[in-house]
Amino acid sequence: MEPAKKSAGDPTGFAADDLAARLRSVRERTCALCAPLAIEDHVVQPSPEVSPPKWHLAHTTWFFEKFVLEPRPRGYRPFDERYHPLFNSYYKSVGPHWLQAERGALSRPTVSEVHGYRRHVDEALEDGLRRGLDEALRFPLELGIHHEQQHQELLLMDIKYILGANPLQPEYGFVEFEAAPGAAQWRDFEAGIHSIGAPPGGFAFDNERPRHRVWLDGFALRPRPVTNGEFREFVEDGGYADPRLWLSAGWDWVGRQRIEAPLYWRRSDGEWTLFTLGGVRPLDPDWPVCHVSYFEADAFARWKGVRLPTEAELEVFLEAEPADQPVWCWTRSAYAPYPRFAPFPGAFAEYNGKFMCSQMVLRGGCLATPAGHGRPTYRNFFEPHQRWMFSGMRLARD
Amino acid sequence: MEPAKKSAGDPTGFAADDLAARLRSVRERTCALCAPLAIEDHVVQPSPEVSPPKWHLAHTTWFFEKFVLEPRPRGYRPFDERYHPLFNSYYKSVGPHWLQAERGALSRPTVSEVHGYRRHVDEALEDGLRRGLDEALRFPLELGIHHEQQHQELLLMDIKYILGANPLQPEYGFVEFEAAPGAAQWRDFEAGIHSIGAPPGGFAFDNERPRHRVWLDGFALRPRPVTNGEFREFVEDGGYADPRLWLSAGWDWVGRQRIEAPLYWRRSDGEWTLFTLGGVRPLDPDWPVCHVSYFEADAFARWKGVRLPTEAELEVFLEAEPADQPVWCWTRSAYAPYPRFAPFPGAFAEYNGKFMCSQMVLRGGCLATPAGHGRPTYRNFFEPHQRWMFSGMRLARD
Amino acid sequence: MEPAKKSAGDPTGFAADDLAARLRSVRERTCALCAPLAIEDHVVQPSPEVSPPKWHLAHTTWFFEKFVLEPRPRGYRPFDERYHPLFNSYYKSVGPHWLQAERGALSRPTVSEVHGYRRHVDEALEDGLRRGLDEALRFPLELGIHHEQQHQELLLMDIKYILGANPLQPEYGFVEFEAAPGAAQWRDFEAGIHSIGAPPGGFAFDNERPRHRVWLDGFALRPRPVTNGEFREFVEDGGYADPRLWLSAGWDWVGRQRIEAPLYWRRSDGEWTLFTLGGVRPLDPDWPVCHVSYFEADAFARWKGVRLPTEAELEVFLEAEPADQPVWCWTRSAYAPYPRFAPFPGAFAEYNGKFMCSQMVLRGGCLATPAGHGRPTYRNFFEPHQRWMFSGMRLARD
Amino acid sequence: MEPAKKSAGDPTGFAADDLAARLRSVRERTCALCAPLAIEDHVVQPSPEVSPPKWHLAHTTWFFEKFVLEPRPRGYRPFDERYHPLFNSYYKSVGPHWLQAERGALSRPTVSEVHGYRRHVDEALEDGLRRGLDEALRFPLELGIHHEQQHQELLLMDIKYILGANPLQPEYGFVEFEAAPGAAQWRDFEAGIHSIGAPPGGFAFDNERPRHRVWLDGFALRPRPVTNGEFREFVEDGGYADPRLWLSAGWDWVGRQRIEAPLYWRRSDGEWTLFTLGGVRPLDPDWPVCHVSYFEADAFARWKGVRLPTEAELEVFLEAEPADQPVWCWTRSAYAPYPRFAPFPGAFAEYNGKFMCSQMVLRGGCLATPAGHGRPTYRNFFEPHQRWMFSGMRLARD
Repeated sequence: MEPAKKSAGDPTGFAADDLAARLRSVRERTCALCAPLAIEDHVVQPSPEVSPPKWHLAHTTWFFEKFVLEPRPRGYRPFDERYHPLFNSYYKSVGPHWLQAERGALSRPTVSEVHGYRRHVDEALEDGLRRGLDEALRFPLELGIHHEQQHQELLLMDIKYILGANPLQPEYGFVEFEAAPGAAQWRDFEAGIHSIGAPPGGFAFDNERPRHRVWLDGFALRPRPVTNGEFREFVEDGGYADPRLWLSAGWDWVGRQRIEAPLYWRRSDGEWTLFTLGGVRPLDPDWPVCHVSYFEADAFARWKGVRLPTEAELEVFLEAEPADQPVWCWTRSAYAPYPRFAPFPGAFAEYNGKFMCSQMVLRGGCLATPAGHGRPTYRNFFEPHQRWMFSGMRLARD
Repeated sequence: MEPAKKSAGDPTGFAADDLAARLRSVRERTCALCAPLAIEDHVVQPSPEVSPPKWHLAHTTWFFEKFVLEPRPRGYRPFDERYHPLFNSYYKSVGPHWLQAERGALSRPTVSEVHGYRRHVDEALEDGLRRGLDEALRFPLELGIHHEQQHQELLLMDIKYILGANPLQPEYGFVEFEAAPGAAQWRDFEAGIHSIGAPPGGFAFDNERPRHRVWLDGFALRPRPVTNGEFREFVEDGGYADPRLWLSAGWDWVGRQRIEAPLYWRRSDGEWTLFTLGGVRPLDPDWPVCHVSYFEADAFARWKGVRLPTEAELEVFLEAEPADQPVWCWTRSAYAPYPRFAPFPGAFAEYNGKFMCSQMVLRGGCLATPAGHGRPTYRNFFEPHQRWMFSGMRLARD
Repeated sequence: MEPAKKSAGDPTGFAADDLAARLRSVRERTCALCAPLAIEDHVVQPSPEVSPPKWHLAHTTWFFEKFVLEPRPRGYRPFDERYHPLFNSYYKSVGPHWLQAERGALSRPTVSEVHGYRRHVDEALEDGLRRGLDEALRFPLELGIHHEQQHQELLLMDIKYILGANPLQPEYGFVEFEAAPGAAQWRDFEAGIHSIGAPPGGFAFDNERPRHRVWLDGFALRPRPVTNGEFREFVEDGGYADPRLWLSAGWDWVGRQRIEAPLYWRRSDGEWTLFTLGGVRPLDPDWPVCHVSYFEADAFARWKGVRLPTEAELEVFLEAEPADQPVWCWTRSAYAPYPRFAPFPGAFAEYNGKFMCSQMVLRGGCLATPAGHGRPTYRNFFEPHQRWMFSGMRLARD
Repeated sequence: MEPAKKSAGDPTGFAADDLAARLRSVRERTCALCAPLAIEDHVVQPSPEVSPPKWHLAHTTWFFEKFVLEPRPRGYRPFDERYHPLFNSYYKSVGPHWLQAERGALSRPTVSEVHGYRRHVDEALEDGLRRGLDEALRFPLELGIHHEQQHQELLLMDIKYILGANPLQPEYGFVEFEAAPGAAQWRDFEAGIHSIGAPPGGFAFDNERPRHRVWLDGFALRPRPVTNGEFREFVEDGGYADPRLWLSAGWDWVGRQRIEAPLYWRRSDGEWTLFTLGGVRPLDPDWPVCHVSYFEADAFARWKGVRLPTEAELEVFLEAEPADQPVWCWTRSAYAPYPRFAPFPGAFAEYNGKFMCSQMVLRGGCLATPAGHGRPTYRNFFEPHQRWMFSGMRLARD
């Protein structure tokens, strides 16, 4: 099964504005992503930042129930009100929520009950859409679809972590990498005023707006992401042991966690292997390096004598060279509000804005991003030590 | 299903020395204890001290594989050698082991694979017994049976915790309590030299031996365990808020964990309820108080103006009044080696002796102890803050 | 004693390029800042981020010894080589260093020995300057002077924390606040390309360079910093209890640390008081609010319906309205390298660049900043939860 | 200066029941113990379990003020009521107290102010004794003297830790060790009923009473404590790397703390050295091993094929061979109440009884125990991982 690719090949895509069809398609794909899993794989949480797949199945459903079905005038009967605090992720304005780090402590509801919850909500949504959509619900519904697509990517990240942390190293079903695309020659961009951010019209997250002007000095950017082969040179040159290459917080992290290579790399008998969604493979030097933290990406760039791009630079590049993106690329930009940023209304203000602190922006998308979900203006963000997402890098220089 | 009681009523019991039959019976009962669980319930670890039921199923199997099957001359084929570090609990002398607090991070092997593991080992054991038992394996096999019975009790403790920590409060199947037995009048015991500990012959754990003399001053002991009703008075008299009643470490624990009642007690609308294996019930004042820590038992006794018995005193009482025990009773005795204590040989030395530090002894047995597994000389032990086991108390005075 | 003000009144200032005189003046002022302290005040570290004053006295001395005296060809005799790891703060490239959080564990060297160390190094520096300055040492010497000025401000922050954390609330000697200066009317700035950062020539830290262009949308900024009176309204309106006002990490911090007001505010009998360097005073509503974290500044601005300025906006304002600054003002800008940033050479590369992660920029200067040390281009930076520095805020809006 | 020895040579001793003279002598000796220290040495707390010497000077004074002076009818004026929560150690029943781990965060009151506090209280006590002692205060006064003697020993432990944790390794003034006394041949003791504990009459702590009968099986005990030379063999035989020798909690401690030798041992260039109160010395193989935890003492005994004595066995030995004791000897007995134990009355009930949990008993006394303060019935107690006290061991066998 190759979830991202299959959708990518779908010629109808998500472009046609048929809400009901898009909703059904996205909801079904989430289930399809979990289909290869054992029930046990749905339950565990081997790291506080990883959520059990069962939780994703339920949380995305709660999102529709809370924000689309519950506000409707005609009586919707919640599937089970006790689920609300369990599957509210972090929306303080709509009620209490279970502690994120304790999601793996819950054996109930079972996977089967969660699928029952999904069906109950899907039926109510479809019934509502058949009767005619209340215009006020168009935005929550639209947002719920994009929200669920985000969780499809999180699902693949979390599934990989759950399987990869297991000494039995079980396979999910397909190898997610291929040779890194793009030219190895640097491409120059001239200085000047650029506009970045999402223009009005069409869906975009609040954090992508408003489109606004920025001044960029001239820069060059290397289209091909950094590869495993390049990163292996850094590792073998002692990059992880030289404090001069690292941010101070990065060096502390390396020492405290005894980090010696990207996540999922393992060396045995002098050979490097990688854990992939298709099981353990020899390290392919042509694949893009993946599962590196910001600290590692930044140290690598310093070792190379270059730097990471800013998010504006990377957006300019992505607009200039649109293509499928194999890995999210770290930028040197902290996640911050754009000038004149206005958060989504109501409880949705908590969706993005409240995380604009101590996180770095990644751009582009990755193999696990659902087809049609990415955009050059899309802003992903993680803490600088995190690396269980599909994170790699492109290089820039002045 | 009422596992403890059913076995208790089994007239053939485990007394007959038919190893093969006892082995099969014990192995089957472990599976029967898990039968009411959902697959998801087998996997989670809501507290570091609680193990997933799947782990118990596999660990007890590993014990036989490692100590009975592996040493045999004729070629036994391990089910999967990668299981060994996963299901070795803490035996440093037979290889590395997975971290106890991370048992809930493992989705694989699945419950079904673990049952396959059990069948594989059971068949090899039964085949071996049919061919005639190597005399050197009699002790490991015997120990493995008692070991698995201990894990049957742990299973019920852990299952209760897993279900009780879940806001949906699912039921396991039966209410484990009934009115506390025994006289409410104090019974006097005279001063003198007593012998305690297991005599030679018959199975006993190494920590119960050798039988030895102790001097006991005269004391009195109240046969009926402390009840919920009595403990509720302590709670409502402000017992949890008066530092003079508590050991220093206990007072720190109460404050840090914000403890206000025994585990599984909840107050709503002024009424106390209990979570039981049969679901939430009103607090029955006649049931023995259960799921209290040593700190709570000690503070309660001080509030009453009496004290907890020593383990020697409680053993003398249990010999004098043999009966089914509803809850383990805390003693004021730290878990320590008896005079001339000799640990089990080889790797089994790690079974009991290495825990003789910072733990308190409990005596008697409980509703979850398999029929035939308890003895008056039996020494259970836990840390003074722990309370997820079926722990209560009897009172003593000088 | 009012250290900042006294220097501010010095008409010769630090502008004249008489290195020896500037060096002596700065070195003497550091000692003068510590003169009001008891020996005991020099030693303690009531929080990991606070350093004992004794450590500042020694570390600033080590900086000159390591970077100015040690590289000289003619034989300089170190005062005591065992001091080097104790007083190296974090320069990995020049040797090991003591753990920051353990600085308060060291009773030796004594305060008197540290003053001996200072005299030894001062004499060697003065002797060297008399013989004629090696041109290669001009930069380390200049940097050492600015470095020591930075520590003068840190000293006042740390002294305030040491005295303020003590239940006896001892006084240092002067009240550091007066009414917040500046107009209460918003001042408008037009959209356009601005240049920010330090121009070539003259001293500036590497992180202030190079001067570069930025595009700014039109904005307004309120010259007067937010006052205690304004912030008290936020407190009394329940600002600390409304999650919608807070960044996610800020809300967690408020809950975990039970934050209810700025640092050094205390309420007794319904009245607010402040701890100042001159002891406990009633809260003066006209003083600028001080000792707030980024989280608090950001929440306050959101409650007001406005926002914090970016660092570029604040620099533009500071260039337009030069004045003494009472409190550092938080900006919404994460601390990051400027375009074409080049770190200081050699070990000095560790001075600023390696902290460009997970910190926010503050601008302007404060009452504790030595006279002549501040500049509109000066970039101060702290983590978003920190607040023992003299941190306040100005408001901006689009 | 050799504090313990000087007092030991005092022919008037503490035996004569002249309360005023004893009080003055003990109070003066506490100051004498601190006389060699720098002011800075009085302030720091390099480990949560170590208290600053300044704190001991003040706490012992608070004890007299709170329990002897404050209850008097005639008006005693407290020196400074704000000191009470600062120098109350842990008596919940007389008011709040500062957190033990934060004692090193307090620079004030200064050492000089604390000496003023001591003089104030001493004068009030002496004045009261001159006027004639209220009989009700005899016990608090007597207890205060013994209490202060206990803190004299704690002072030497804490001073040693403060100086020993400092890389400059300053000296206090004398080497505290000499060759271990006592026969190297085992001495046999016959089985039977023994009486242990303090008889009525004379001062003893509540935990030493009542004297009571115990049955002891026959045992042998080696009079000479284990020496550095013997322990070095254990170290060099890999004792710290063999999990079979260790208690489970001990093995975790060794791994987590990377323990490889007793505290204050250091190996450089293949030679072992010791930090002593007289500075760093080569390891003398004839000195008693000191500064070992219970875990290390227990592992050593297991490696030797013998065991640690119980506290009853060691008391029987100490009664049979009275002598000065160089190091406290670990016993295998957990600290627990004796049969019919009655705590001291009132707030003094908190003195000893509330620590009877998770601690092990040490017996005998040590070089730092004030002359006349020890007794064979004296019960010292520490947690099994602690080792900054003067702790060694004697061996026993069945």
